[in-house]
Amino acid sequence: MSTNYHEQDYLEALKTRGVMPEGFKAGTASLSFIPSERPTQEPYRMNMGCVLLDQPTHSVAGVFTRNAFPGAPVIIGRQRIADAGPVSGLLVNNKIANVSTKTGVEDARHLSNRLCTAAGLPEHSVFPVSTGIIGWSLPVPDMEEALPQLTASLQGEQLLPVAQAMMTTDRYPKLRRVPLGDGSLVGLAKGAGMIEPNMGTMLIFLLTDVAFDRQEGQQVLQQVVDRTFNCISVDGDQSTSDMCLLLGSGCKGRVGRNELEKALGELCSSLAEDIVRNGEGTSHVIKLTVLGRKSFDEARGIGKAVINSPLVKTAIYGNDPNVGRILGAAGDYLGNNDLPVDAGKLTITIGGQTVFDRGSFTLDKKKEALLADYYTDAAMNPRLKGYPEHDRSVEITLDFHQGDAKALVLGSDLSNEYVHENADYRS
Amino acid sequence: MSTNYHEQDYLEALKTRGVMPEGFKAGTASLSFIPSERPTQEPYRMNMGCVLLDQPTHSVAGVFTRNAFPGAPVIIGRQRIADAGPVSGLLVNNKIANVSTKTGVEDARHLSNRLCTAAGLPEHSVFPVSTGIIGWSLPVPDMEEALPQLTASLQGEQLLPVAQAMMTTDRYPKLRRVPLGDGSLVGLAKGAGMIEPNMGTMLIFLLTDVAFDRQEGQQVLQQVVDRTFNCISVDGDQSTSDMCLLLGSGCKGRVGRNELEKALGELCSSLAEDIVRNGEGTSHVIKLTVLGRKSFDEARGIGKAVINSPLVKTAIYGNDPNVGRILGAAGDYLGNNDLPVDAGKLTITIGGQTVFDRGSFTLDKKKEALLADYYTDAAMNPRLKGYPEHDRSVEITLDFHQGDAKALVLGSDLSNEYVHENADYRS
Repeated sequence: MSTNYHEQDYLEALKTRGVMPEGFKAGTASLSFIPSERPTQEPYRMNMGCVLLDQPTHSVAGVFTRNAFPGAPVIIGRQRIADAGPVSGLLVNNKIANVSTKTGVEDARHLSNRLCTAAGLPEHSVFPVSTGIIGWSLPVPDMEEALPQLTASLQGEQLLPVAQAMMTTDRYPKLRRVPLGDGSLVGLAKGAGMIEPNMGTMLIFLLTDVAFDRQEGQQVLQQVVDRTFNCISVDGDQSTSDMCLLLGSGCKGRVGRNELEKALGELCSSLAEDIVRNGEGTSHVIKLTVLGRKSFDEARGIGKAVINSPLVKTAIYGNDPNVGRILGAAGDYLGNNDLPVDAGKLTITIGGQTVFDRGSFTLDKKKEALLADYYTDAAMNPRLKGYPEHDRSVEITLDFHQGDAKALVLGSDLSNEYVHENADYRS
Repeated sequence: MSTNYHEQDYLEALKTRGVMPEGFKAGTASLSFIPSERPTQEPYRMNMGCVLLDQPTHSVAGVFTRNAFPGAPVIIGRQRIADAGPVSGLLVNNKIANVSTKTGVEDARHLSNRLCTAAGLPEHSVFPVSTGIIGWSLPVPDMEEALPQLTASLQGEQLLPVAQAMMTTDRYPKLRRVPLGDGSLVGLAKGAGMIEPNMGTMLIFLLTDVAFDRQEGQQVLQQVVDRTFNCISVDGDQSTSDMCLLLGSGCKGRVGRNELEKALGELCSSLAEDIVRNGEGTSHVIKLTVLGRKSFDEARGIGKAVINSPLVKTAIYGNDPNVGRILGAAGDYLGNNDLPVDAGKLTITIGGQTVFDRGSFTLDKKKEALLADYYTDAAMNPRLKGYPEHDRSVEITLDFHQGDAKALVLGSDLSNEYVHENADYRS
């Protein structure tokens, strides 16, 4: 964990992390367009980015949103994973998410196939990916016009330009790298939640120069996503377009299930924390551990209920050690889901201080003062705005002592900046 | 529905509504205390209030929070409903909710019994009720000292002083009245949600001068609460102390189930809307109707997911017709709860405008401009701050065309004022 990044150091770190794994190339383009749905004459800006394999691969896996109204790219992506054909990359755009429009699926297929043709790749082998406003249509002719710019920019050195192109209101690009077998695993992330308000999308691209078994890769990716990206929450909203893709070129040999799982776990944990820290308006990151439940799902459900409670989030924003709200939020979830609880066994700690012990609060003047100081110290340094520090968090544990399962969930506080960002993001 | 209340008119209306039903008397007191948990020398203020019957009654019903960590008054209240003994009233305090402290149940029993003794009523016949900070202990000696002040103030004319005493950050007292049989049904409400941030409590007292069958009353109250107070949401947090009590003196005869249900339904709908409009920082009230589902619970679940989405709430606050967020929030809930949905049958309207029709958005420049105007017009008049207008709402319908069940849910937007109120409410 690094501390106190400065802008230049952070960009240098990103360039090191973003070195292209063997067998891939990447390009970006930008364009302007007038949305057909918005009463404005002011053109909107859109970025496009792509990551292409030199050779189509079968080392591929994908995990998609559970939202019942998935975007066109999610519909197509699921189909391509199910079809089990060769894959040669992805094409991503920001600004418009391409969800539930009349021609959405057709638009996405058309654009990704145009890129396949231009790059000499098999048809239907590139995943279309979109993030942005839900309900609007992609400006297809403008995007087609930008394809030559995209293919002309293809290079085999750096992924940073793609990580930057897929940003919308992200404060900074998010890139991580870990070793994997004889090669590397590199992850690019954008979103989610308050970072991407009406866009509401988390996109994760994981690229490696090793190969893996397709079925194993799919299982491992689903498990890792469940314990990393599905354990974070900025505002509780799951997008219509969330997507996590894993692609391997196989240039540097092959890895087995365990190696893949370990590298993915490490990479995805770091990226998940990057996403939470990147939240617009986030001033505190909350790391909540729920212990002693019967199942991981139960533990995660309780944890998410607490970190999604507006009352918990605003108290932490205000450095107010209002610990009753934590118990209230957990009790609300437990009661509404008919989950068994024995308050007499529950212990709650904040920053190592026990605030609730076997059925009762254990608060006094000294402890409340310590907690207020702890919250204040955990606030991220505003002088370093735009760059992440991974050293400060509000750490909370709820131990129910009723089982062996546990979950770690990451959340952010709720600030005035969040409301401001989200009240008229599109203007 | 009245429009544009002015302060004086509103207070006059409250006095008319608050005329005491026959067979009851009410009193209030206030005190100051130093909390033992807070590092402060500044005394806190607390109000106490009571409503007592001239004669103990069996016409009583109560509905309580489902929170798994209920406050001491909820634990005692449930027991008293189950015991089916005679009841002679309630004793309420604000400022401290009396939840999960070592001596909480004992404290509440002791104080309510002291009131019984002072007022010449049978022991264990008065419901203790508390709202306020979770985790702190009641200042029992200070409250005992205030009991003579409380009994000395007992009068049989007006409920308004009690409605005022139980307020915390409520903008105004909430009182409603409807006829019932040969008498009246009067309701007092305080809370909830953003109004009562770390207090997080909705308290409803329903008083009538008619009698009713105890078992019928309990069934009817549960049903009505489910379709009124359980269909509103300010911030999605269910308190440890939510409570709704119904007491009948029987001075004006007896009513049957149907009469009781009709009067309770009407009264509780009005009070529920009062609570939403009263929210600190609320500038828009959202009335969302979900139609065409298989069950009421399913319809309400979808509706609550939408009105609790921070992204939906902030967009409406900003008068931004960001309709994609509504679809996104509904789809998130449907997907995560494995509920069947056919997007091709779904229709969404806002203010009468169809924005989504059988599988696709139907947005254009003109419609977006109309929606922005509609949201702006629906904002409550800030000049009338502190007093409710029931004439302006953002009306949204989601019709799934998959069944006959429906639900109406009421919510509020999410504003900077909300965050400000909740970030350090206790200071």
